[in-house]
Amino acid sequence: MGRVYNFAAGPAAMPLGALEAAAAELTDFRGAGVSVMEMPHRSGAYRAIFDETIGLIRELMGVPDHYRVLLAQGGATLQFAAVPLNLLGRGADYVDSGYFAHSALSEAMKYGAARSAASTRDQGYRRAPEGSEADVDPNADYVHVTTNNTIYGTRIPSLPPGRGVPIVADMSSNILSEAYDVRDFGVIYAGAQKNIGPAGLTVIIVREDLLGRARRETPKAMDWKAMDEAGSMLNTPPTFAVYMAGLCLKWLKARGGVEAIQRENLEKSRLLYDCLDRSERFVPYADAGSRSRMNVTFRTESDAGDERFAAEAERAGLVNLRGHRLTGGIRASLYNAMPLEGVRALVEFMEEYERRG
Amino acid sequence: MGRVYNFAAGPAAMPLGALEAAAAELTDFRGAGVSVMEMPHRSGAYRAIFDETIGLIRELMGVPDHYRVLLAQGGATLQFAAVPLNLLGRGADYVDSGYFAHSALSEAMKYGAARSAASTRDQGYRRAPEGSEADVDPNADYVHVTTNNTIYGTRIPSLPPGRGVPIVADMSSNILSEAYDVRDFGVIYAGAQKNIGPAGLTVIIVREDLLGRARRETPKAMDWKAMDEAGSMLNTPPTFAVYMAGLCLKWLKARGGVEAIQRENLEKSRLLYDCLDRSERFVPYADAGSRSRMNVTFRTESDAGDERFAAEAERAGLVNLRGHRLTGGIRASLYNAMPLEGVRALVEFMEEYERRG
Repeated sequence: MGRVYNFAAGPAAMPLGALEAAAAELTDFRGAGVSVMEMPHRSGAYRAIFDETIGLIRELMGVPDHYRVLLAQGGATLQFAAVPLNLLGRGADYVDSGYFAHSALSEAMKYGAARSAASTRDQGYRRAPEGSEADVDPNADYVHVTTNNTIYGTRIPSLPPGRGVPIVADMSSNILSEAYDVRDFGVIYAGAQKNIGPAGLTVIIVREDLLGRARRETPKAMDWKAMDEAGSMLNTPPTFAVYMAGLCLKWLKARGGVEAIQRENLEKSRLLYDCLDRSERFVPYADAGSRSRMNVTFRTESDAGDERFAAEAERAGLVNLRGHRLTGGIRASLYNAMPLEGVRALVEFMEEYERRG
Repeated sequence: MGRVYNFAAGPAAMPLGALEAAAAELTDFRGAGVSVMEMPHRSGAYRAIFDETIGLIRELMGVPDHYRVLLAQGGATLQFAAVPLNLLGRGADYVDSGYFAHSALSEAMKYGAARSAASTRDQGYRRAPEGSEADVDPNADYVHVTTNNTIYGTRIPSLPPGRGVPIVADMSSNILSEAYDVRDFGVIYAGAQKNIGPAGLTVIIVREDLLGRARRETPKAMDWKAMDEAGSMLNTPPTFAVYMAGLCLKWLKARGGVEAIQRENLEKSRLLYDCLDRSERFVPYADAGSRSRMNVTFRTESDAGDERFAAEAERAGLVNLRGHRLTGGIRASLYNAMPLEGVRALVEFMEEYERRG
């Protein structure tokens, strides 16, 4: 078959134009005689690519000058340790809104007094806590949130009250999909493989006053200050992933940037939630007030029914709709690169599937 | 110009066939309707790619069954911390044979009693210590070596005596370029960007009895046992880099594997060293007994002369010959993907350059 509609939760669909551009110059980057993959990371030609990607992140997210943008490896999971290693002294508060939020908290507890300031764990993470539910200690070093919970399909409706405590956000699954004011955060980090580019790249945005607090046992390659001083080239960066991210970000910019894509993402998710709310067969998982715009989770009458639906959808060119292995069910991820037509095709398929019974 | 001869030290030249294969299926992997970059890492189609890459590493290196092969992110630099975090209890010995060997030691000293068991630092790392020079404590948890020193262009001529102490080897710049017996090592690790594939992937080979000793403060994403239990999918792996590595390893296998490429690498480096030894203008940097087969370092009469040489070579399609920023000079890296014809072209250029005066 030709290209399909890919609803994977990550690694996920990427803009076709970005993939085509990469394919066209894969063996010879714009007459350089080598692939981007073969370029020394400190060469002028490669640095231009690297700087352009960082510049696009700054521009698209409106990153103020007193924040640094770092590119790293290891995914959000490595940052679950890097956050406490770089920031944890007296104590830290965590908003426990899902599986990865909980993993971030567990990892932080290795290093010091990290605690849950709000949790919806006993509600099966069907909803994400409101910011006002978080009991943030004004003496905490930071309060950690996960803005979008990929597995359960929820989004935190609001941020905890600042009280002078820096908010550290894992934005892996909704970065660049809606407008956030970077000034509301001390640190933002995200694995690239949902809304930025391919897997193997991590973006970290740090307010500069939070640099230089790393604990003694911090591996050098995880020390944000050392990374910043080396211009994110403490060691060889994932050069091709950074280039691919740049191609995807150029695509986003050409589409009108974050505000434009936010409107589109709202429309996409509304289309699908409306279908779920009308349906007598499909049951949405997340509470209405916490619905994610990126990951729409639902179920049929049974696990077997979920599997049958996913398998039939796949044959219709609507792929990777199975839910996370921890939860089962169905999950449609609607990241930036998923076109509106893909969601329309899914909704039509669901309506026809329901009519057929 | 067309494709050039790329002597970069890493990221480095890759087999053209591997790049062409990737370009051909970049937007649609073998009829799947998605790019490899867009595949969920736990899907059957992607797992087949992942397992094939691991299988090729095992086959090409002859990895015995009681060793695990892990794929990770973060490069050798992150492993400089991971090694002591996973293994250091009483103490560890390091053979200080170059810049990265020294960095590995410095990082280990954060976590406990790590010491230099042999060093050629005061000789400007022109030579690498013989294994017999290493004063290995029989009670050490491990002895760390760097088999090839990329910056200075040296190779350790022999391994330290075992004495029951596991040898941990950073093989970043000569893995798969010559035959090693994996049984001689407790752990082998390597960043991919020289002889394996693109930057952003790290290969770790661990003897199974060395798993499960991680210190409490080890980030989960760096804990070899946790990584092994999760089949190197504790979190999203660098999926495309693993695929590209697989394409490069298939190329190596088709060329006859490690023994065949070792013969070719010996011939390539001999050609260039013979040229240097004949020359009255180019001066090799490394001592004759420690010469690397991967990175050949040399100088002309002056820094300006080095720069002029590198610039002229570049115009002749022989690129990335400038030495590391720490040392200056000239460096020709002759990794597996550098064809013999590339080295011949370089030698001819050097001879003509010398004749011209």
